[in-house]
Amino acid sequence: MPRYALKVEYQGKPFAGWQRQKELPTVQGAIEAALSRIEPGEHTIAAAGRTDAGVHALGQIAHCDLVKEWDPFRLSEALNYHLKPQPVAIVRAARVDDDWHARFSALERQYLFRILMRRAPATHERGQVWQISHELDVAAMQAGADMLIGRHDFTTFRSTICQAASPVKTLDELRVEQVQGFSGPEIHFHVRARSFLHNQVRSFVGTLERVGAGSWSPDDVRNALEAVDRAACGPVCPPQGLYLARVGYPEPVFS
Amino acid sequence: MPRYALKVEYQGKPFAGWQRQKELPTVQGAIEAALSRIEPGEHTIAAAGRTDAGVHALGQIAHCDLVKEWDPFRLSEALNYHLKPQPVAIVRAARVDDDWHARFSALERQYLFRILMRRAPATHERGQVWQISHELDVAAMQAGADMLIGRHDFTTFRSTICQAASPVKTLDELRVEQVQGFSGPEIHFHVRARSFLHNQVRSFVGTLERVGAGSWSPDDVRNALEAVDRAACGPVCPPQGLYLARVGYPEPVFS
Repeated sequence: MPRYALKVEYQGKPFAGWQRQKELPTVQGAIEAALSRIEPGEHTIAAAGRTDAGVHALGQIAHCDLVKEWDPFRLSEALNYHLKPQPVAIVRAARVDDDWHARFSALERQYLFRILMRRAPATHERGQVWQISHELDVAAMQAGADMLIGRHDFTTFRSTICQAASPVKTLDELRVEQVQGFSGPEIHFHVRARSFLHNQVRSFVGTLERVGAGSWSPDDVRNALEAVDRAACGPVCPPQGLYLARVGYPEPVFS
Repeated sequence: MPRYALKVEYQGKPFAGWQRQKELPTVQGAIEAALSRIEPGEHTIAAAGRTDAGVHALGQIAHCDLVKEWDPFRLSEALNYHLKPQPVAIVRAARVDDDWHARFSALERQYLFRILMRRAPATHERGQVWQISHELDVAAMQAGADMLIGRHDFTTFRSTICQAASPVKTLDELRVEQVQGFSGPEIHFHVRARSFLHNQVRSFVGTLERVGAGSWSPDDVRNALEAVDRAACGPVCPPQGLYLARVGYPEPVFS
């Protein structure tokens, strides 16, 4: 059966996360239902990152196996037709080798986290940012973030239900920047690694927000990391500012 | 009674426009209801621009008269509390002179129109952009837009239900630019004038889109203007890409 890679964009809000669940709407469930409209029968797709409830994607990557030889563009069009009106879109599709795997072939994942800094409730960005009403010190947050770069035991920044075999991961990038958003100043966290522990990005951002607000120092972040203790973590921030932005593979998948 | 100016942001989608209607949710109705929660009784507010159904605002300006002397920040906080969970927010409030008027004191209005150019359905920007699936020629659209700048009889670009006394208006700015949006390339139209006719911006954008797509030439825009005939207008574009961005007054209202 020919295998196809799909680049998927979605809003997290209406879904109980990526992974299929029996009684709840999920992104995987929505795409598998659309697949069964174009090729009857059961479908099981795999994804590069299983996002939690409320987490968005700009560039989630999944793959599916189909009976028919599909023109990739027509495949994306057919799936988008059946996905409507759900806020999930196949932005690209490509034919890949039979042994290519959306999850296991991936070399790195990149996440974006958006904080909107303003007092008045968000309207246009509601559900798409974490809104806070105080100012944040970007330089202090970057100094804290720098403590986390590299290969470490990230037990402190890992959910207690994390199923990864090891808490040791290499963090390649954690860049903090302030940008002018559509309706106010935003802080963007760009986080990149080969793979992540469960809740790792939200644990980073929640902790660094404490640094930006002045209640933690950058050194407190290093101390929390070195404690190798979940109890040393700052508050885990809410999911609605988090986006799976990009997945990297050895070769570009979409020409 | 002390008078207060309010800078208002809202999503157009859930509302049948700005202006109060008996049986339909409107932005004016939502804010007046919030006002009656903080000072019992009937309230009537005035706004700089009465936006149509589906049209958004980043910087709508309204004014209200209240019995109490309110600290402007506390007034905005109290109104935002009562406006929740509707996507309307008072982003600023200020005390103004009793003869200051949100509509009649305004010197100019600025609108933003957003087109998202991509094939896959919008997810994050759904309802916030006009999505089209073909490419647009920005230089051609700007050449067409340039034909409209200045003082003209804009009968061609005016809804037949427009109630303005005269179709003659002065268009101060109509700037077309391509920007990289959150999930694809966008075309932004920046349109500025002292005042506008009904559906004027949507008539401009719908016509210029035809120029960008190549089915009209820039000269066709001039011919349509000079026809002084509503039937010469291009298609009126949908409302969901339109934002009332800014209103200008002789003196800055919000310090």
